[in-house]
Amino acid sequence: MKPINLSEKLAMFATHWDPHVVADYNQNEVMVVKFQGEFLFHKHEETDDFFYVLEGEMFMDIEGEDSKVVKAGELFVVPKGVVHRPRAEAEVKVLLIEPKGEPNSGDADRAPAPKPRV
Amino acid sequence: MKPINLSEKLAMFATHWDPHVVADYNQNEVMVVKFQGEFLFHKHEETDDFFYVLEGEMFMDIEGEDSKVVKAGELFVVPKGVVHRPRAEAEVKVLLIEPKGEPNSGDADRAPAPKPRV
Repeated sequence: MKPINLSEKLAMFATHWDPHVVADYNQNEVMVVKFQGEFLFHKHEETDDFFYVLEGEMFMDIEGEDSKVVKAGELFVVPKGVVHRPRAEAEVKVLLIEPKGEPNSGDADRAPAPKPRV
Repeated sequence: MKPINLSEKLAMFATHWDPHVVADYNQNEVMVVKFQGEFLFHKHEETDDFFYVLEGEMFMDIEGEDSKVVKAGELFVVPKGVVHRPRAEAEVKVLLIEPKGEPNSGDADRAPAPKPRV
């Protein structure tokens, strides 16, 4: 039970699209992640997807809608079932919350490994 | 489905110890709150309590342990059942996540009203 400094945690890895778990909240994993470039379009059938931008700026592309710009200090919740794609032109640092065991891509076949902890 | 700017939401109210809901994440309410002074010692029997400091600095007093300082950019999860008291000497701005309907104080008799939305 101690404060968790997100900048310190983010400094511990350099990879993109590679969420690292920093804490647990009930049945959820609280993670930090760095994005650059674009992920794949995907959805989570059973869960909302929580993003809070810590540093930089990202786009959330939503199927059938205009892209949303999400800046540092802004959060974005993708409701379950909504097809979306996170994207960033320059590196962005994000706080992410998802239920434990939920693969990034919403598809267990594509991302079966447990997420590392920092 | 749009980005939520937490500074803008925080500017919409001035009260302390008065969380305002800004988004839903699964069965949780995502809230912003301003603290100054001290809350009461309490616990949540059934849920962890998620704090992320956006601006300023707070103390988390934990029964039987030293107080923890939690600064901007740091998060703190109080596990369920742990008696704790948030406290701040100067105003602090915090992102808070709790299951929908959970009273601030962990006791429905003391905080029965639904939380406002901004």
